[in-house]
Amino acid sequence: MKKIIVQKFGGSSLASAERIKAVAEICKKTKHNENCNLVVVVSAMGDTTDDLIDLMEQINSKPAAREQDMLLSTGEQVSISLLAMALNKINEKAQSLTGWQAGIKTESVHTKARIKEIETARISKLLDEDNIVVVAGFQGFDDNNEIFTLGRGGSDTTAVALAVSLGADRCDIYTDVDAVHTSDPRIVKKTSSLKNISYDEMLELASLGAQVLHPRSVETAKFFHMPLRVRSSWQPDNLGTLVSDNININTIERKEIKVIEGQKAVRGVAIDKKQARLSIIGVPDEPGIAAKIFGELSENGISVDVIVQCVSNDGHAELDFTVKRDSAELAKIEIDRIAKLVGAKRTSLDLNVVKVSIVGAGMIDQPGIAAKMFKSLGQKGINIQMISTSEIRISCIVDEKQGEEAVQVIHEAFGLSGLSE
Amino acid sequence: MKKIIVQKFGGSSLASAERIKAVAEICKKTKHNENCNLVVVVSAMGDTTDDLIDLMEQINSKPAAREQDMLLSTGEQVSISLLAMALNKINEKAQSLTGWQAGIKTESVHTKARIKEIETARISKLLDEDNIVVVAGFQGFDDNNEIFTLGRGGSDTTAVALAVSLGADRCDIYTDVDAVHTSDPRIVKKTSSLKNISYDEMLELASLGAQVLHPRSVETAKFFHMPLRVRSSWQPDNLGTLVSDNININTIERKEIKVIEGQKAVRGVAIDKKQARLSIIGVPDEPGIAAKIFGELSENGISVDVIVQCVSNDGHAELDFTVKRDSAELAKIEIDRIAKLVGAKRTSLDLNVVKVSIVGAGMIDQPGIAAKMFKSLGQKGINIQMISTSEIRISCIVDEKQGEEAVQVIHEAFGLSGLSE
Repeated sequence: MKKIIVQKFGGSSLASAERIKAVAEICKKTKHNENCNLVVVVSAMGDTTDDLIDLMEQINSKPAAREQDMLLSTGEQVSISLLAMALNKINEKAQSLTGWQAGIKTESVHTKARIKEIETARISKLLDEDNIVVVAGFQGFDDNNEIFTLGRGGSDTTAVALAVSLGADRCDIYTDVDAVHTSDPRIVKKTSSLKNISYDEMLELASLGAQVLHPRSVETAKFFHMPLRVRSSWQPDNLGTLVSDNININTIERKEIKVIEGQKAVRGVAIDKKQARLSIIGVPDEPGIAAKIFGELSENGISVDVIVQCVSNDGHAELDFTVKRDSAELAKIEIDRIAKLVGAKRTSLDLNVVKVSIVGAGMIDQPGIAAKMFKSLGQKGINIQMISTSEIRISCIVDEKQGEEAVQVIHEAFGLSGLSE
Repeated sequence: MKKIIVQKFGGSSLASAERIKAVAEICKKTKHNENCNLVVVVSAMGDTTDDLIDLMEQINSKPAAREQDMLLSTGEQVSISLLAMALNKINEKAQSLTGWQAGIKTESVHTKARIKEIETARISKLLDEDNIVVVAGFQGFDDNNEIFTLGRGGSDTTAVALAVSLGADRCDIYTDVDAVHTSDPRIVKKTSSLKNISYDEMLELASLGAQVLHPRSVETAKFFHMPLRVRSSWQPDNLGTLVSDNININTIERKEIKVIEGQKAVRGVAIDKKQARLSIIGVPDEPGIAAKIFGELSENGISVDVIVQCVSNDGHAELDFTVKRDSAELAKIEIDRIAKLVGAKRTSLDLNVVKVSIVGAGMIDQPGIAAKMFKSLGQKGINIQMISTSEIRISCIVDEKQGEEAVQVIHEAFGLSGLSE
């Protein structure tokens, strides 16, 4: 049996007829060079989704979620048919399939369904008949033949889920960057591209704002040990970054780099600009109050990110935490209400903070990493408002105005420039 | 049980957000004024289909028919979701359904499938729950979950087929004209609109170029005795034209008109500008030669329309016939080949002819109608090249340059102006 590869192309890779033809060439080359069965997952073309949303908002600014799914799922259907036509044009057998035709069963939750299972019979039959199978990302259906979209990161997740269900060797995610970098090239001049990265490192980088891969798809890939390759449809010969749990490879590489340049336990520097900081000050330091506060926020659909609590000598506590900036106003109303209930002194909201983080699975056995990060910030006069750490990540909340500078000094401090192959 | 009405809106009725809102108002009014269950069938918005075809042709000028269906069926899916949103916005319960969700089973013939049956369970359930059900026209699916489009006149046909399957009282076809007229208002200044017309008359008018309703939908309506109302979404209070087999109503009306103005057996004047005339001259007058000629043309997919054969004294025949102009060149090649085979003297092709017709079920018992038509043409010096008649239609092939004038003089000769209510 031939090996199977799944390749996913995002909207910017498919933004015009010319780009679609270029993608068809990549698919053809993959199929023949790797002598594999190929499944291709696509997003909606370039601005299609935005155009549809514009039209929608002229008609109804609060449309029913099911009608929104009905509308937006057309975008991928346009892409699949055009890519299949482009493949046919260069003499490749190809067939396009919508989410329901591809057997992608989802939860019955409109606009943010998760994939439950994939009935792969139809895809497998088409692959056996030597077709390149082009599948609509971002969409699926339930037992009642309702159409659901998967929400943010949906097409990446479709690709990974298909790769897992089909027992694929690998899943290529084509984006508009050539690889995973040590930081955002728009902020840091000399970033390095990474040949390999672990799922955990990628998860931290992704959720921290290096928006190359959505955490959902990385989590799924991690759970099923599906190797992902992040690469660019503009540089198809560049192998990009392999995301896998192949710790041996990572460790070896990392060790080699350590020997040469030291301190390469830090793999990347990320910035999340969509943070807001809330404080609730003078809270009676009683058990259960934090649970109450975060419980109420959670019931209102507000996710809390970094949390810092400190207790003063007078038996009062201060709770600082960050939320996504677009839910900050709502969170403020909630904590004002809770502050009254629990007898807190006052609350405050700062919309102008960002989270700067370093990520690397090797940090765990490297002492002094945190100190080095804090020191590099201190030398530039960048005040650290909050600190949060995990086994493979250290994050600092700093003033928005100093965010990009913070990324630059940290990137430099850990010697991350000039590492690319 | 509430009565059911099906309403169909074409692409020009849905060309913008504003138009979609206007259509939603029409639907709301119908549902409440007529206290009915309402099913709405829609086409793709305005130029959507043309835009998709443009994009397609940049990629592959000869796309696979299945991929074309995949692509073009998105147009109606956009329309249904937007119309459902517009209905929700004005507080109407509504749900949209694609062809496969609505249970529209078709033949497995891409780009021109015919509807086989409709499994109406889902629509009926939604109607019982007080929804306006918005269904995508022009599309269906087969037992293998393949998507098929219905080809020309497809959305009208979807509407009529749904009306029949649901046992609807009536099917309204909203177009960009206010009613069926006695002739094309772009050619004749003072056309009259018709309150009623029979299926047969409508079929003759439709197939002769008055492109208000596609013959497919009229044929289906006729077979199942489903009353159609042709009306305008720009003038929703105008009842338009009722197309039915209610001969009593038609006869009474027609008689009344006869009493007042005479000769109203003729209901309309149509022109078909896409004709070409072929002649094969000096054919040996032997049995089976016509069958041979038209058999060969048919095998090449060429439909023949008007046929005239005359036999001269010397035992040779001349065969004149018309075909659609876009298949004329191919037909010429075929008849040149056949002419050699059967020993005909020569052939000719005239691309510059049109067919002008009068239609009316009352003609059958009105002598002198044909004579009046021919006389009116003769008085203006318009030469009749060929004549063809059916029970309710008389057609003349004339030079293209005189086509519009022919329509005008005939419309005047039969006193068809100034009849509208």
